[in-house]
Amino acid sequence: MDIIVLGSEATEEDIRHIVKKLEGRGLKAHISTGTERTIIGVIGDTSKVTEEEEDSFRAASGVENVVRIVKPFKLASREFRKEDTVISVRGIAIGGRRIPVMAGPCAVENKTILTGIAEKVSAAGALFLRGGAFKPRTSPYAFQGLGEEGLRYLAEAREKTGLPIITEIMDPRDMDVITKYTDIIQIGARNMQNFRLLLEVGTSDKPVLLKRGLSSTIQEWLMSAEYILSRGNHNVMLCERGIRTFETATRNTLDLSAVPVLKQLTHLPVVVDPSHGVGKRDLVAPMAKAAVAAGADALIIEVHTNPEEAMSDGDQSLKPDQFDRLMKELKPIAAAVGREI
Amino acid sequence: MDIIVLGSEATEEDIRHIVKKLEGRGLKAHISTGTERTIIGVIGDTSKVTEEEEDSFRAASGVENVVRIVKPFKLASREFRKEDTVISVRGIAIGGRRIPVMAGPCAVENKTILTGIAEKVSAAGALFLRGGAFKPRTSPYAFQGLGEEGLRYLAEAREKTGLPIITEIMDPRDMDVITKYTDIIQIGARNMQNFRLLLEVGTSDKPVLLKRGLSSTIQEWLMSAEYILSRGNHNVMLCERGIRTFETATRNTLDLSAVPVLKQLTHLPVVVDPSHGVGKRDLVAPMAKAAVAAGADALIIEVHTNPEEAMSDGDQSLKPDQFDRLMKELKPIAAAVGREI
Amino acid sequence: MDIIVLGSEATEEDIRHIVKKLEGRGLKAHISTGTERTIIGVIGDTSKVTEEEEDSFRAASGVENVVRIVKPFKLASREFRKEDTVISVRGIAIGGRRIPVMAGPCAVENKTILTGIAEKVSAAGALFLRGGAFKPRTSPYAFQGLGEEGLRYLAEAREKTGLPIITEIMDPRDMDVITKYTDIIQIGARNMQNFRLLLEVGTSDKPVLLKRGLSSTIQEWLMSAEYILSRGNHNVMLCERGIRTFETATRNTLDLSAVPVLKQLTHLPVVVDPSHGVGKRDLVAPMAKAAVAAGADALIIEVHTNPEEAMSDGDQSLKPDQFDRLMKELKPIAAAVGREI
Amino acid sequence: MDIIVLGSEATEEDIRHIVKKLEGRGLKAHISTGTERTIIGVIGDTSKVTEEEEDSFRAASGVENVVRIVKPFKLASREFRKEDTVISVRGIAIGGRRIPVMAGPCAVENKTILTGIAEKVSAAGALFLRGGAFKPRTSPYAFQGLGEEGLRYLAEAREKTGLPIITEIMDPRDMDVITKYTDIIQIGARNMQNFRLLLEVGTSDKPVLLKRGLSSTIQEWLMSAEYILSRGNHNVMLCERGIRTFETATRNTLDLSAVPVLKQLTHLPVVVDPSHGVGKRDLVAPMAKAAVAAGADALIIEVHTNPEEAMSDGDQSLKPDQFDRLMKELKPIAAAVGREI
Repeated sequence: MDIIVLGSEATEEDIRHIVKKLEGRGLKAHISTGTERTIIGVIGDTSKVTEEEEDSFRAASGVENVVRIVKPFKLASREFRKEDTVISVRGIAIGGRRIPVMAGPCAVENKTILTGIAEKVSAAGALFLRGGAFKPRTSPYAFQGLGEEGLRYLAEAREKTGLPIITEIMDPRDMDVITKYTDIIQIGARNMQNFRLLLEVGTSDKPVLLKRGLSSTIQEWLMSAEYILSRGNHNVMLCERGIRTFETATRNTLDLSAVPVLKQLTHLPVVVDPSHGVGKRDLVAPMAKAAVAAGADALIIEVHTNPEEAMSDGDQSLKPDQFDRLMKELKPIAAAVGREI
Repeated sequence: MDIIVLGSEATEEDIRHIVKKLEGRGLKAHISTGTERTIIGVIGDTSKVTEEEEDSFRAASGVENVVRIVKPFKLASREFRKEDTVISVRGIAIGGRRIPVMAGPCAVENKTILTGIAEKVSAAGALFLRGGAFKPRTSPYAFQGLGEEGLRYLAEAREKTGLPIITEIMDPRDMDVITKYTDIIQIGARNMQNFRLLLEVGTSDKPVLLKRGLSSTIQEWLMSAEYILSRGNHNVMLCERGIRTFETATRNTLDLSAVPVLKQLTHLPVVVDPSHGVGKRDLVAPMAKAAVAAGADALIIEVHTNPEEAMSDGDQSLKPDQFDRLMKELKPIAAAVGREI
Repeated sequence: MDIIVLGSEATEEDIRHIVKKLEGRGLKAHISTGTERTIIGVIGDTSKVTEEEEDSFRAASGVENVVRIVKPFKLASREFRKEDTVISVRGIAIGGRRIPVMAGPCAVENKTILTGIAEKVSAAGALFLRGGAFKPRTSPYAFQGLGEEGLRYLAEAREKTGLPIITEIMDPRDMDVITKYTDIIQIGARNMQNFRLLLEVGTSDKPVLLKRGLSSTIQEWLMSAEYILSRGNHNVMLCERGIRTFETATRNTLDLSAVPVLKQLTHLPVVVDPSHGVGKRDLVAPMAKAAVAAGADALIIEVHTNPEEAMSDGDQSLKPDQFDRLMKELKPIAAAVGREI
Repeated sequence: MDIIVLGSEATEEDIRHIVKKLEGRGLKAHISTGTERTIIGVIGDTSKVTEEEEDSFRAASGVENVVRIVKPFKLASREFRKEDTVISVRGIAIGGRRIPVMAGPCAVENKTILTGIAEKVSAAGALFLRGGAFKPRTSPYAFQGLGEEGLRYLAEAREKTGLPIITEIMDPRDMDVITKYTDIIQIGARNMQNFRLLLEVGTSDKPVLLKRGLSSTIQEWLMSAEYILSRGNHNVMLCERGIRTFETATRNTLDLSAVPVLKQLTHLPVVVDPSHGVGKRDLVAPMAKAAVAAGADALIIEVHTNPEEAMSDGDQSLKPDQFDRLMKELKPIAAAVGREI
């Protein structure tokens, strides 16, 4: 809250009341009186003004509008930390010159399939294995994931291939079992504002990949990152995975402009998930390339050896040979923007 | 999944494969061969086909499109239960002829303020007291609620006024403490697809008010209700509270057409929250009236004795005299649609 | 443009430059220097600052943000005219205590059908006859309307029933033929920002019904009204007809909160079109009632004697007996909000 | 319309009625009777079924749903024309291997500035000069363009630099004056469904760049292209320029996934406008690169020698040196996707 606007009907008393309220919070008022409006510039550390305090000014007599200029996130902001955050996971950097690709099935189905996929994506150059053991599904009747069994298969695939793993958490009560196995904890789009879960992973020392909510603004997303950072976990990466719009030709609308916007606002690494962003296999490759060109620090892509038998999202999973071709095609694009894959 | 469309490039083999897949699931194929497309009508109980099975058909060779006609929710559907569900809470019916109004502050702040509000809204005709003890806040630096202390104040206000209470749950780990005090459990918009939380409240015998997610379709919302119903808790009510659109003149866009749409699709009671829907005090009354005219079964409205000092959402809270006036104005509208308040 | 915010990297020179730019436009700067930002309150008649001037300040060195508080519309604003505009069409007031209902088919198809519908809606209490002679259709292969022939049928139906007529204009070249017949000119949603068409109807003395664009903010809508008003035609009414969102259960999302928002911002009458807003016959009646409860000044509703044979929008047209019943049901709701139908 | 679904309450008579309706249109019905629903597959050339006929089936007794599988556009479809359309403008191909860049100011302001910009962008490698002489502005009080004077300046800049020009048409009455000067006619986003204007440019032999409407689906956009094609003008290119979403960090949300979606659905060239898509200078370069990586056939970019003094959109215009750098950076990305700039 940096500017308070009072309408023409505001009285001298209203203005005095606002000034006093500000002073009570250690802030000063700079008053510009116009013919139609009075504008109060707030001087001092306005970043400490909480939402509810801002609301209370908004609700005061005579106030027409309260404008916030200072961003409400701090630890996540570029101002707080000028240089890019680079997160190291088992020796692999996320946020550096190299663009790591995370790949694997949507859901872990069984050991054989998972290991098969892990070996294929590793051979193609992926640096992380993705796979869900706890699956958030729209329907209570759909496959909900293998749970700890799935986590064990992921760990075994890691042993075989050397690929660190990333898997999703849905419930704060699963923290122990998930951190026992995983290298990166994923917070899914539907849990971006599950604040208790954010606080929980904030106390962990595992890196966190925070997906953008389906209708979350970039600012809300950074506030959710702030929840995690404020608990002491500084290894947060942000993952754009498509937002909800009126367009139905794609599953979601992948908002690639979020990548350069985030690079300005925050020091945290930015990951792009083209698979969920578009929801159709044929569109994944062009959008993966576009993501790299737009400045993404990492990609996360769904790959399945037999998409037709995948228990989730088969329609958007690449086959291993398609993934292999994509990895080759991404290299010159990465080079063109001064990066490598 | 009721119709499978194959494109002109689909082979005989592709069609045989689909037919076999269907038969393997106890379903029959009815094939219509056109010049450009082959349409397979699926005969049998398609409601049992899960999402992932549907995806697997979508991913099969030659398939262009899979169309679902049968709704994916069952227990929540009108077909499952023709008559309206009426939920009784301490003798007050929700979903019947009378339209109960739930009112109170956004957050419980202290005992004196809460009791003051409770007495005012009770005098004005509210039948439930609302108030948050656990508050989902965009910022980690904002007031997060009083926790159990807030629940105790709610229970004390219930004792004084006789009003049953409704309060929000954010975390499955809070089930015990919340059900110890509350009469209705509220699931907030940001947790509409917090599936673990849905399953948890599904095992409770307390009625649940399920708010619509900010960008949730009506079908997804009913699927979330299905999560709760599928665990055995049949006392679910749905609360429209505004969706996210491009319009910035209001906090959200209150989708009142969801009311008649839901009355067709489901037997569950429909509640409307005009306070969050619009986010501005002056707009609450007209939208509350419109909600009743559209067929809402109940309303939930924010009221505060001193909105300027409210710790949350002061900008959208009615003052007691405004609430009192609104309650009087709602009566003839309720009567006009064959209801009463 | 009322506030200019400069970031911490702005120099003294940058500030002097802004001050000079303002003074060159007859405005004064009121500077509040904070530690992180400098806020310049602009004193003077900022409503004269055009968009491009505002952009030029935004593009100046050191500027982080330009905030507009004063609304960019003038003639359309409540400040310009405190009392409600009441438009009189052949003796019928729009914007007064009585809520006139405009009814009729989506498109004029032939004389017999149109006259039949006109007689039915007149008997049910409609005060205007609607019907399109020039139809904006998504497909070039769809029925595009009867043109002048359709206008003649409308005029003949007016003679028989006494109902004034309203019909849509799509092209400035049709002004003469349309104004020769119609009583109210309708601008459709797709033409809300067809600025040349707005200027053209602005020179007419016929009242104009301006529909909201599918993704137009309320402010843009009022700016389009301003186009018409600025040319001298003061008889403009605004028609909410649904906006485009992610929800697919309804054709559009009828934004009824636009009604009270508009009643605050402007003196112009507000009409609601529930037929296009929802797109399904069964949902029209509850939303028409909700519109009246929310404060609408008039309704426009599609009615057809044989919806199955309608050449446009049959799926959302009421049958005459349904319309008759709705008219009866609207009366007590209008009475409940101090109006009549 | 390819599938008609009847609900459980549909009678034998209802089914017979539908079958007869289909037969009356030269189509055959293939009936699949299930326990809960009857599905009618429509056999024959369903692409000839118009919207209003489809609506009439939807409105028939017993019908629950009508599903269209066949795309409603024909001339614009990949099925109609397998190979890419390549449009030649003064010897420069659009839609071929080379990716031409169109650059210039938003609005033509005066001869000196325009010529200066034209020379700069030409030197940097742009192949077309853009500039608006007729400007669609939200406000009637904003600069509306120089009209024919602006067109003359464009023609003069073309003479000096050799760059063909592209400029926007807003009104069918301007066809003569605009086609007298321009090489490519631009239809702006707000006029994408100005159907009379589409028909008008459809009769021209000038190539047309058709921008996507702010809330238009890809299908509606192709239907608008179909309007132009159906009149005989086959030189249509589609320009993605951002859609309207809830996100406010960017002016619009540039939907780059539209590029690969369009490449599948249509043979027409796809242009991307990153300037309007993001609305902020700093974000233009990354999104231009992403557009090329996603498969765009051409780019259109705003450039101004003095953005602060631009009369429109200064905030999103690149300076000549920024544009020059971008052109160099685009080359390796184009090469990486098998194209050149």
